[in-house]
Amino acid sequence: MVLSANPTTIKFLQQPTSQQWLEQALTNLDTILLDHSHCERKAAGVALNLMFRYPSYTKLVRSLTAIAQEELEHFEQVNEILERRGIPLRALAPPPYGAGLNKQIRAKEPDRLLDTLLVCGLIEARSHERLGLLGAHCPDLELAKFYRALMASEARHYGVYWLLATTEFERAVVDQRLEALAAIESQLLATLHPEPRMHS
Amino acid sequence: MVLSANPTTIKFLQQPTSQQWLEQALTNLDTILLDHSHCERKAAGVALNLMFRYPSYTKLVRSLTAIAQEELEHFEQVNEILERRGIPLRALAPPPYGAGLNKQIRAKEPDRLLDTLLVCGLIEARSHERLGLLGAHCPDLELAKFYRALMASEARHYGVYWLLATTEFERAVVDQRLEALAAIESQLLATLHPEPRMHS
Repeated sequence: MVLSANPTTIKFLQQPTSQQWLEQALTNLDTILLDHSHCERKAAGVALNLMFRYPSYTKLVRSLTAIAQEELEHFEQVNEILERRGIPLRALAPPPYGAGLNKQIRAKEPDRLLDTLLVCGLIEARSHERLGLLGAHCPDLELAKFYRALMASEARHYGVYWLLATTEFERAVVDQRLEALAAIESQLLATLHPEPRMHS
Repeated sequence: MVLSANPTTIKFLQQPTSQQWLEQALTNLDTILLDHSHCERKAAGVALNLMFRYPSYTKLVRSLTAIAQEELEHFEQVNEILERRGIPLRALAPPPYGAGLNKQIRAKEPDRLLDTLLVCGLIEARSHERLGLLGAHCPDLELAKFYRALMASEARHYGVYWLLATTEFERAVVDQRLEALAAIESQLLATLHPEPRMHS
């Protein structure tokens, strides 16, 4: 199996997803689908929390409202597929990825805002890459088509987070911090998490 | 000025909104609009948090996804009106209403779920009543029309919370707890909060 997505086109990501992840995902499609549902709900929650924390940033509020709405739409779509396939909704222990990234967010403003936007952007970029891999390699054609349909939104989302970061902060500051966070993001995925997850 | 909404038709509410609140709201329409924006975002957040806490309750997840989507749509609509009117987004100190109600939510399951659903239902019912009052009495015709348009959704929302409560719990248990919480809800609004809010 050869990975067909070109990771170098996703500028946020320093290392491409491994063959191991793709193999793990393709042999655990039900779990990946269930975890994907949780990811969409979490992504909507993160966007809402950001609006809650920065209620007077008009541009941020407007962009994140649109993101939250889209994530909820995807959440609904994933849940519909789960239901049609008779996969019951249930909690899943999260992989260390999210917590590992959140630990990098500095507590003091305005660093906190910059880091949060970049971490969100990195997660969206990775989701974009992995949905692309699933869309290209998933033998289940309904799922493959669904994953390809979602890819464009995820790409738009990391673009939005990037744009918000460069609106609020100087480009050089953003670039430097992104590089540091992207290195950690790739490192967090360097060892495959034993439980199949979107970000294992 | 005579209140035209009939509070006895909103079965969740034990006491109708006072003339004082309506007068306070009508003389502070800009602040009420801004607070309304926060209320819609918070309502979406509460629905998301509930889904997060009860991820395997399929019916709850499905109903609350729809509620969160609608609240985000309203949030967007309120923010558009704020922008057209040149009212900048900014944080507002919340009135004691929400915290007062949240304090009533018992910590132990399944009480916690029942109480949360009923508190959400009560807040939606009160929003429905107050949007009705604003829709009937607001001299600003654009706003009056907008408030009337939102009323139906709020009514649907408290219906959804009620339905979820009666799906998960015995009707007699729900009725008894609702009566206790509704008494507190009315009591929290018995003294007008000095700062104009949707729930002052």
